[in-house]
Amino acid sequence: MGSLKVFGLPASTDVSRVLTCLFEKEVEFQLIRIDTYKKDHKVPEFLRLQDPSGQVTLKDGIFTFVDSREICRYVCEKYANQGNKTLYGTGGLERASIEQWLQSEARNFDPPSSALVFHLAFAVPMGLEPDEAVVNQNVRKLARVLDVYDQRLEDSKYLAGDEFTLADLSHLPNSHYLVDRSERGRELFYSRKNVARWWKEISSRPSWQQVVHMQSEHPGPLEKFKTID
Amino acid sequence: MGSLKVFGLPASTDVSRVLTCLFEKEVEFQLIRIDTYKKDHKVPEFLRLQDPSGQVTLKDGIFTFVDSREICRYVCEKYANQGNKTLYGTGGLERASIEQWLQSEARNFDPPSSALVFHLAFAVPMGLEPDEAVVNQNVRKLARVLDVYDQRLEDSKYLAGDEFTLADLSHLPNSHYLVDRSERGRELFYSRKNVARWWKEISSRPSWQQVVHMQSEHPGPLEKFKTID
Repeated sequence: MGSLKVFGLPASTDVSRVLTCLFEKEVEFQLIRIDTYKKDHKVPEFLRLQDPSGQVTLKDGIFTFVDSREICRYVCEKYANQGNKTLYGTGGLERASIEQWLQSEARNFDPPSSALVFHLAFAVPMGLEPDEAVVNQNVRKLARVLDVYDQRLEDSKYLAGDEFTLADLSHLPNSHYLVDRSERGRELFYSRKNVARWWKEISSRPSWQQVVHMQSEHPGPLEKFKTID
Repeated sequence: MGSLKVFGLPASTDVSRVLTCLFEKEVEFQLIRIDTYKKDHKVPEFLRLQDPSGQVTLKDGIFTFVDSREICRYVCEKYANQGNKTLYGTGGLERASIEQWLQSEARNFDPPSSALVFHLAFAVPMGLEPDEAVVNQNVRKLARVLDVYDQRLEDSKYLAGDEFTLADLSHLPNSHYLVDRSERGRELFYSRKNVARWWKEISSRPSWQQVVHMQSEHPGPLEKFKTID
């Protein structure tokens, strides 16, 4: 089979970013999941393998990619005329606007939101004590980022303009865990009118709903711990 | 990593036979599952991949095995001094008795029980009409096999003697789907006193319970269809 191969677990935010992009572009692929069962504890090594920060690998023939945003760019370029054709823009100006917000996601949104995903959405249900100072610091940082987004989304439907693009898509994985699994995360999104509208819009796309469905089939550390005890 | 690699889905009866054996022998292994996502329908090819008759492959370095019972024998021989040491017997006489019932499972029990797993446990919930003539014929065949088992289990705790062995283990996958998912299957087992006692005993082993847990995490065609509709 000449199809793309994705290695990783859907619970990982990086893996789910790539899966959403592949569904948007209607690309055929194989998802390969590997669980290791040790002789002393007969369950897979959840924390290592199903970490929300777990890595994703894409193999396309002899090419291998490991950065989820780079993989999304690659998929959009390679399958430009397939599936959602405006996902990465069709002209230089559009592409520049998408890149601006895509890079803002990686630089400004990802660091505080990843910290909050760990401390609010995963640590607490696993019985770990979240570091309140770290939480407060990152809530403040993320609030500042979302204030900018709220202003931007006053003028345009999506971050890069009138169309849903890779820039919006890239925000889905972390936002989902925050909105879905923590009060403070939900509050950050729903207290901002335009961010709330944008979130409802992008999170209801069939591509993302399919990924959420896959995550529920292959749950992350939280659900695993519940069923083992 | 030098560990054994198992390729397949836990919902398959052949895969679950091998997994149970590996858990009994406390062998470290990797389970590798591959789902294919097509561009036109964004869900894996459930029926082909998650078929209860889906194949299992074991790779151990340069060796590859595809028959689930052969794999179990191989694992027991290779890891004779590990985990459950009596699973495949310790002397010639024990081994002969285990082989007699293991081969009875493959020759006498498997054909009618596999037909019933398909017709009763999978076809009906998928909206397919079971072939009543085929069902009745196989119920009669399986009843005759279970009558012999019931007599045997009057005299001994397990099929090959006083210990749980590969002979008992090999019956778990098909029996589970029959007892768990069909009235007529349940009736076949629970109407026979000794078979009922034996089934409760072998199906409550932690090794098998772990496999049932894995099946529920990675459901077969039945559950998949429910969630998609």
